[in-house]
Amino acid sequence: MAETDQAPPPSDQLAALNLTDTVEKHAFSDRVLIRSIVGRPDGGAGLAGQRVRAGGWVKTGREQGKGTFAFLELNDGSSPANLQVIVDAGLSLLSKLVATGTCVVVDGILKVPPEGTRQKIELRVEKVVSLGEVDPAKYPIPKTKLTLEFLRDHLHLRARTNTIAAIARIRNALAFATHSFFQEHNFLYVHTPILTTSDCEGAGEMFQVTTLISESEKLEKELIKNPPPSEVDIEAARQVVSERGEAVKQLKAAKASKSEITASVAELNKAKENLSKLEERSKLKPGIPKKDGKIDYTQDFFARQAFLTVSGQLQVETYACAVSNVYTFGPTFRAEHSHTSRHLAEFWMVEPEIAFADLQDDMNCAEAYVKYMCNWLLDKCLDDMQFMAKSYDKGCIDRLRMVASIPFVRISYTEAVELLEEAVKGGKKFENEVKWGIDLASEHERYLTEGKFQKPVIVYNYPKGIKAFYMRLNDDLKTVAAMDVLVPKVGELIGGSQREERYEVIRERILEVGLPLEPYEWYLDLRRYGTVKHCGFGLGFERMILFATGIENIRDVIPFPRYPGRADL
Amino acid sequence: MAETDQAPPPSDQLAALNLTDTVEKHAFSDRVLIRSIVGRPDGGAGLAGQRVRAGGWVKTGREQGKGTFAFLELNDGSSPANLQVIVDAGLSLLSKLVATGTCVVVDGILKVPPEGTRQKIELRVEKVVSLGEVDPAKYPIPKTKLTLEFLRDHLHLRARTNTIAAIARIRNALAFATHSFFQEHNFLYVHTPILTTSDCEGAGEMFQVTTLISESEKLEKELIKNPPPSEVDIEAARQVVSERGEAVKQLKAAKASKSEITASVAELNKAKENLSKLEERSKLKPGIPKKDGKIDYTQDFFARQAFLTVSGQLQVETYACAVSNVYTFGPTFRAEHSHTSRHLAEFWMVEPEIAFADLQDDMNCAEAYVKYMCNWLLDKCLDDMQFMAKSYDKGCIDRLRMVASIPFVRISYTEAVELLEEAVKGGKKFENEVKWGIDLASEHERYLTEGKFQKPVIVYNYPKGIKAFYMRLNDDLKTVAAMDVLVPKVGELIGGSQREERYEVIRERILEVGLPLEPYEWYLDLRRYGTVKHCGFGLGFERMILFATGIENIRDVIPFPRYPGRADL
Repeated sequence: MAETDQAPPPSDQLAALNLTDTVEKHAFSDRVLIRSIVGRPDGGAGLAGQRVRAGGWVKTGREQGKGTFAFLELNDGSSPANLQVIVDAGLSLLSKLVATGTCVVVDGILKVPPEGTRQKIELRVEKVVSLGEVDPAKYPIPKTKLTLEFLRDHLHLRARTNTIAAIARIRNALAFATHSFFQEHNFLYVHTPILTTSDCEGAGEMFQVTTLISESEKLEKELIKNPPPSEVDIEAARQVVSERGEAVKQLKAAKASKSEITASVAELNKAKENLSKLEERSKLKPGIPKKDGKIDYTQDFFARQAFLTVSGQLQVETYACAVSNVYTFGPTFRAEHSHTSRHLAEFWMVEPEIAFADLQDDMNCAEAYVKYMCNWLLDKCLDDMQFMAKSYDKGCIDRLRMVASIPFVRISYTEAVELLEEAVKGGKKFENEVKWGIDLASEHERYLTEGKFQKPVIVYNYPKGIKAFYMRLNDDLKTVAAMDVLVPKVGELIGGSQREERYEVIRERILEVGLPLEPYEWYLDLRRYGTVKHCGFGLGFERMILFATGIENIRDVIPFPRYPGRADL
Repeated sequence: MAETDQAPPPSDQLAALNLTDTVEKHAFSDRVLIRSIVGRPDGGAGLAGQRVRAGGWVKTGREQGKGTFAFLELNDGSSPANLQVIVDAGLSLLSKLVATGTCVVVDGILKVPPEGTRQKIELRVEKVVSLGEVDPAKYPIPKTKLTLEFLRDHLHLRARTNTIAAIARIRNALAFATHSFFQEHNFLYVHTPILTTSDCEGAGEMFQVTTLISESEKLEKELIKNPPPSEVDIEAARQVVSERGEAVKQLKAAKASKSEITASVAELNKAKENLSKLEERSKLKPGIPKKDGKIDYTQDFFARQAFLTVSGQLQVETYACAVSNVYTFGPTFRAEHSHTSRHLAEFWMVEPEIAFADLQDDMNCAEAYVKYMCNWLLDKCLDDMQFMAKSYDKGCIDRLRMVASIPFVRISYTEAVELLEEAVKGGKKFENEVKWGIDLASEHERYLTEGKFQKPVIVYNYPKGIKAFYMRLNDDLKTVAAMDVLVPKVGELIGGSQREERYEVIRERILEVGLPLEPYEWYLDLRRYGTVKHCGFGLGFERMILFATGIENIRDVIPFPRYPGRADL
């Protein structure tokens, strides 16, 4: 029997344990969270002797003692660590329990394992409460080591792997850190719209949202089932109307009784109604409705063309210019046919906007926010970070510590270009030419943050020609008050700017970049009435996760990646 | 001079004030938040004597003392309360300051106003730092009392009104309460996709997302600029190929030099390439690509038809069945032509999903979550709630207190129908017939929660015929383990269920409701491999805000409402 494997802990050890500890109960389940056992500083040892119900999925299982008992490594997603569970053969068919992916709920007693084992606690099972079996021959992800690429073809099961579960916990932590940071600093969370009729930068490939296609398909089906009236049908209906009209006339001429005339008029009206219905239906045409050769968007759901947002910035500015400090955190979309490891068609962005604040304040906020997230992960996700360091990126924890503690370098764009030119003189090769006026390429950004400074760098005051119209024009009339935060591993993490708050200047800038004024009248109103100095930035949330974890492909840090050709589930 | 209006506080009053208090500085701005002054328990009195910079928008302003000074009620969105500001005529043109909507930043000293005034503190300005003017004749929302309906036509400015700003703060508080509740209970926030190729319930009107229309428009433009080759062009190109082929043949026959032949073959290849390019371009047709008379979605961005999600439930279940406790909180979409005060085309939903949990756990979680939000508002938004009580719904604070403290009534659907039938016998009139098997109409739900019990009611175990296939079949084979939470003021606030975890049963249910199996294979996999008892629910976030505030129209509790015919900004 398994019992013989397990020497009871010596009595002095028992005395040292705090047996008054109790396991934290799950609020909405009769089981306990595995983290509340193995995630304790004592590894769970202080809970020895307690009866608990645990549930989870078997990571690895093996029969032992000639099939008299089984060891299961049980995980419920609450922590990267598993709970070791020991089940005697009398309680269940062990061969069913040990398959990877099996779900079990068990009741048992927590015991301190014999000395020399890695675990500080294990669960000796008294009852197998329930069992969700797995046929190992069919289970799509049976092995423990699978490539991330393979897992992308099994989105619905990949969260059961250690890596994707750890990323899910880190992503969750960063999301809550984001809300906590902005709430602590008195920012209001504003839900900017996903469906929009504005285009944020007059650029960017946008997804169109429409009901015209489905409406036209519905109509097509309906017309097949119930064909539109022919010209003959309509002519016949017209004939009926004219006959009924004649009948009414005759009755009136013949001074027929009132009730006779009324009945006849009713008949006439019925015929007229029928005719107009047929005429209406005869106008129905399959296909997307057109007007003057163009698609007639007045018949679309919103009575105009609608798109998925590429950024909530312009809209959230309407709130900043009313309630001062706001942020939006939601999905954004780009319909770019980009197949890189850094692009998604659907991704999440964090976009704060601060009134009564300038570019310096913007940089201060961005730096504080990034540091806050790093500290949050070090505080609350160290076990998951250790897993990432062990499995993917040795340096990821040091990187978090460095970014959390070191002041970010701040250099102007002009200084950045000078540094890059110096590097070129020193023999550094770039694919893209370096000269004042270029948009910094990823290789340039990586050189600055990873090569030159080896820490986060904020570059500010970019040439106006390469930046959006809404960025505030500097006094030199050549640059705008924009800033990008560059970090090791991913390069650009944040892009932001002070916004142009001067009505005449922004109007001029819109025209200068060749945009029409009309769609921006509402945006101009913010400058027309009670304008305020303000600034903001956008952080690509998935980039932050790449930065934190060292994962290489952005498709692995979002639960359901969308990219050209793929939108599974 | 204004000074004469302001008697200095008597010295004993000064002594009672804690003059060591300092105003909380804004972290990313050089001004202080108005809330950090007027939102204090002492109304700001303890800050008298301090120099601060404040910024905000003028709610109301008036010149006094024959134009020698002005009173401004300044608000920066940080609280419903304004800061009273006094500006002497020497500092600025007072007529420019007093217009509603003007943005000002001022430096000054906080002073205790003369006794008998409502304010506990006021700011005596020493310097007007900056000014964003308003032309009152043109300002679209100059008056303080405007109808909510009118404001819907001015989405970009409406957050400057007291009501929309208060709703923004309440919405923000409820969003953070949501995250705090689930994080405290060890749920992971999972970002389910907005773009989906699954249809959650096989029902619901969905918005289609496509790039086919824009691609075809782009192509049309391109073809106009650069017309496709004519048959004559292609014939000419073919002629060139054949001539070049002939030339090669002749050179070979004539045993020409290697270099001559190579050059000739190169010419031939160039001609062939040109021909194939022309042939390719000649195939380009304007319009949406079709195949066999149907739209060819293999050419769409995701190589298949894609939609906006109507619920993240099915997808979030994949995470619940891997990491146990999860929730999603994001936008969802319905393309319904619904013009009611309760429907939006884009709205936010909170959807937790709990593994190792049943319908009882689900109800416990829903009740705890709603109570948590009510307590949160009472704790952190009482000033805004008082504004709502004063302006819109006298009973809203009492309703929060009641829901936070009273256990929710829990009755089965069958009991609910019996109670409704009793009510009908007692003379109550409903528009919709009451009998076992009906879906409860809003009037029925409102009767139960507002009439019969006057508190929140959870109705559970609904007839399977009116509920979705994924809800767990009860042992009676007639009902499913579904539950709805009904609350006064809005009726249904939450809908949830235990999910069917038995593979054979859910497979049967999918077929029974007439859905195809293939699109649900991934969903079936969750039951095929390591299945687990689990449950979840969805809360309509805007409904919660309606419930809390007493606002009547859902279009007023979301920053950018989308509904048929309207998607401004």
